[in-house]
Amino acid sequence: MKAKILIRPKRGILDPQGKAIERALPALGFEGVSEVRVGRLVELEAAEPDRLAELCEKLLANPLIEDYEIELDGDPTGGEALQTPPSES
Amino acid sequence: MKAKILIRPKRGILDPQGKAIERALPALGFEGVSEVRVGRLVELEAAEPDRLAELCEKLLANPLIEDYEIELDGDPTGGEALQTPPSES
Repeated sequence: MKAKILIRPKRGILDPQGKAIERALPALGFEGVSEVRVGRLVELEAAEPDRLAELCEKLLANPLIEDYEIELDGDPTGGEALQTPPSES
Repeated sequence: MKAKILIRPKRGILDPQGKAIERALPALGFEGVSEVRVGRLVELEAAEPDRLAELCEKLLANPLIEDYEIELDGDPTGGEALQTPPSES
Protein backbone atom coordinates (compact mmCIF):
# COMPACT_ATOMS: atom_id res chain seq x y z
CA MET A 1 0.00 0.00 0.00
CA LYS A 2 1.27 3.44 -0.88
CA ALA A 3 1.82 5.76 2.06
CA LYS A 4 2.72 9.39 2.38
CA ILE A 5 4.43 10.48 5.57
CA LEU A 6 4.62 14.15 6.50
CA ILE A 7 7.21 15.08 9.10
CA ARG A 8 7.17 18.56 10.58
CA PRO A 9 9.03 20.37 13.32
CA LYS A 10 6.91 20.35 16.47
CA ARG A 11 5.13 23.54 17.39
CA GLY A 12 7.48 25.74 19.37
CA ILE A 13 10.63 24.14 17.99
CA LEU A 14 12.82 26.58 16.11
CA ASP A 15 12.86 25.95 12.36
CA PRO A 16 15.95 27.59 10.87
CA GLN A 17 15.13 26.49 7.31
CA GLY A 18 11.72 28.10 7.52
CA LYS A 19 13.22 31.29 8.92
CA ALA A 20 15.80 31.38 6.12
CA ILE A 21 13.04 31.09 3.52
CA GLU A 22 11.01 33.83 5.20
CA ARG A 23 14.01 36.13 5.18
CA ALA A 24 14.83 35.43 1.54
CA LEU A 25 11.36 36.18 0.24
CA PRO A 26 11.25 40.00 0.26
CA ALA A 27 14.46 40.13 -1.81
CA LEU A 28 12.72 37.99 -4.42
CA GLY A 29 9.69 40.24 -4.47
CA PHE A 30 7.32 38.09 -2.42
CA GLU A 31 5.48 39.85 0.35
CA GLY A 32 2.90 38.51 2.73
CA VAL A 33 4.35 35.06 3.27
CA SER A 34 4.72 34.09 6.90
CA GLU A 35 4.82 31.15 9.27
CA VAL A 36 7.03 29.13 6.97
CA ARG A 37 7.82 25.68 8.39
CA VAL A 38 9.92 23.18 6.52
CA GLY A 39 9.54 19.48 7.05
CA ARG A 40 10.08 16.26 5.15
CA LEU A 41 7.89 14.22 2.89
CA VAL A 42 8.52 10.48 2.66
CA GLU A 43 6.56 8.42 0.17
CA LEU A 44 6.85 4.67 0.14
CA GLU A 45 5.20 1.40 -0.68
CA ALA A 46 4.62 -0.64 2.48
CA ALA A 47 3.52 -4.25 2.77
CA GLU A 48 2.55 -3.72 6.41
CA PRO A 49 1.08 -0.22 6.78
CA ASP A 50 0.29 -0.95 10.44
CA ARG A 51 3.96 -0.74 11.24
CA LEU A 52 4.52 2.67 9.70
CA ALA A 53 4.06 4.52 12.97
CA GLU A 54 6.83 2.39 14.49
CA LEU A 55 8.98 3.06 11.43
CA CYS A 56 8.47 6.81 11.87
CA GLU A 57 9.41 6.64 15.54
CA LYS A 58 12.51 4.57 14.95
CA LEU A 59 13.92 5.86 11.69
CA LEU A 60 12.12 8.60 9.82
CA ALA A 61 11.29 11.20 12.44
CA ASN A 62 12.97 12.44 15.57
CA PRO A 63 10.05 12.25 18.00
CA LEU A 64 11.67 14.73 20.36
CA ILE A 65 11.43 17.58 17.91
CA GLU A 66 9.22 16.36 15.08
CA ASP A 67 5.62 15.31 14.58
CA TYR A 68 4.61 12.92 11.87
CA GLU A 69 1.42 12.24 9.99
CA ILE A 70 0.79 9.10 7.96
CA GLU A 71 -1.61 9.19 5.02
CA LEU A 72 -2.47 5.90 3.40
CA ASP A 73 -3.41 5.98 -0.25
CA GLY A 74 -5.66 3.44 -1.83
CA ASP A 75 -7.95 3.89 1.14
CA PRO A 76 -11.53 4.31 -0.10
CA THR A 77 -12.15 7.04 2.47
CA GLY A 78 -9.50 9.10 0.74
CA GLY A 79 -6.64 8.54 3.10
CA GLU A 80 -6.48 7.75 6.77
CA ALA A 81 -4.31 10.08 8.74
CA LEU A 82 -2.45 8.89 11.80
CA GLN A 83 -0.99 11.61 13.94
CA THR A 84 1.91 11.34 16.28
CA PRO A 85 0.50 9.91 19.51
CA PRO A 86 0.76 12.15 22.56
CA SER A 87 4.08 11.74 24.31
CA GLU A 88 4.01 9.12 27.06
CA SER A 89 7.27 9.87 28.80
CA MET B 1 -4.37 31.42 3.23
CA LYS B 2 -2.56 28.39 4.52
CA ALA B 3 -0.73 26.36 1.92
CA LYS B 4 1.08 23.07 1.96
CA ILE B 5 3.76 22.52 -0.65
CA LEU B 6 5.06 19.05 -1.38
CA ILE B 7 8.37 18.85 -3.20
CA ARG B 8 9.56 15.51 -4.52
CA PRO B 9 12.44 14.29 -6.65
CA LYS B 10 11.25 13.88 -10.23
CA ARG B 11 10.59 10.40 -11.46
CA GLY B 12 13.82 8.90 -12.70
CA ILE B 13 16.02 11.18 -10.62
CA LEU B 14 18.18 9.29 -8.16
CA ASP B 15 17.10 9.78 -4.57
CA PRO B 16 20.02 8.90 -2.28
CA GLN B 17 18.08 9.64 0.93
CA GLY B 18 15.34 7.26 -0.12
CA LYS B 19 17.87 4.58 -0.98
CA ALA B 20 19.58 5.03 2.38
CA ILE B 21 16.28 4.56 4.18
CA GLU B 22 15.46 1.47 2.13
CA ARG B 23 18.81 -0.06 2.98
CA ALA B 24 18.48 0.72 6.68
CA LEU B 25 15.08 -0.89 7.08
CA PRO B 26 15.92 -4.61 7.14
CA ALA B 27 18.41 -4.03 9.96
CA LEU B 28 15.59 -2.46 11.99
CA GLY B 29 13.28 -5.41 11.32
CA PHE B 30 11.10 -3.81 8.66
CA GLU B 31 10.50 -5.87 5.57
CA GLY B 32 8.37 -5.13 2.58
CA VAL B 33 9.03 -1.41 2.32
CA SER B 34 10.07 -0.25 -1.12
CA GLU B 35 10.06 2.71 -3.47
CA VAL B 36 11.04 5.13 -0.75
CA ARG B 37 11.30 8.69 -2.02
CA VAL B 38 12.20 11.58 0.24
CA GLY B 39 11.09 15.09 -0.48
CA ARG B 40 10.33 18.28 1.39
CA LEU B 41 7.21 19.66 2.95
CA VAL B 42 6.84 23.43 3.20
CA GLU B 43 3.87 24.87 5.04
CA LEU B 44 3.23 28.56 5.03
CA GLU B 45 0.69 31.31 5.29
CA ALA B 46 0.44 33.26 2.02
CA ALA B 47 -1.38 36.50 1.34
CA GLU B 48 -1.23 35.87 -2.42
CA PRO B 49 -1.67 32.14 -3.03
CA ASP B 50 -1.65 32.77 -6.78
CA ARG B 51 2.05 33.47 -6.62
CA LEU B 52 3.01 30.26 -4.87
CA ALA B 53 3.86 28.45 -8.10
CA GLU B 54 6.32 31.22 -8.94
CA LEU B 55 7.72 30.99 -5.40
CA CYS B 56 8.24 27.26 -5.84
CA GLU B 57 10.03 27.76 -9.16
CA LYS B 58 12.29 30.49 -7.84
CA LEU B 59 13.09 29.49 -4.30
CA LEU B 60 11.59 26.35 -2.86
CA ALA B 61 12.10 23.70 -5.52
CA ASN B 62 14.76 23.02 -8.08
CA PRO B 63 12.60 22.56 -11.18
CA LEU B 64 15.34 20.62 -12.95
CA ILE B 65 15.18 17.72 -10.54
CA GLU B 66 12.09 18.28 -8.42
CA ASP B 67 8.34 18.40 -8.89
CA TYR B 68 6.11 20.39 -6.61
CA GLU B 69 2.49 20.23 -5.63
CA ILE B 70 0.62 23.06 -3.93
CA GLU B 71 -2.34 22.30 -1.70
CA LEU B 72 -4.35 25.23 -0.46
CA ASP B 73 -6.15 24.82 2.83
CA GLY B 74 -9.25 26.75 3.68
CA ASP B 75 -10.56 25.80 0.27
CA PRO B 76 -14.11 24.41 0.58
CA THR B 77 -13.33 21.72 -1.98
CA GLY B 78 -10.80 20.33 0.47
CA GLY B 79 -7.68 21.70 -1.10
CA GLU B 80 -6.82 22.61 -4.61
CA ALA B 81 -3.72 20.90 -5.91
CA LEU B 82 -1.49 22.60 -8.42
CA GLN B 83 1.08 20.39 -10.03
CA THR B 84 4.33 21.42 -11.58
CA PRO B 85 3.50 22.61 -15.08
CA PRO B 86 5.08 20.61 -17.90
CA SER B 87 8.53 21.89 -18.74
CA GLU B 88 8.50 24.52 -21.46
CA SER B 89 12.18 24.68 -22.29
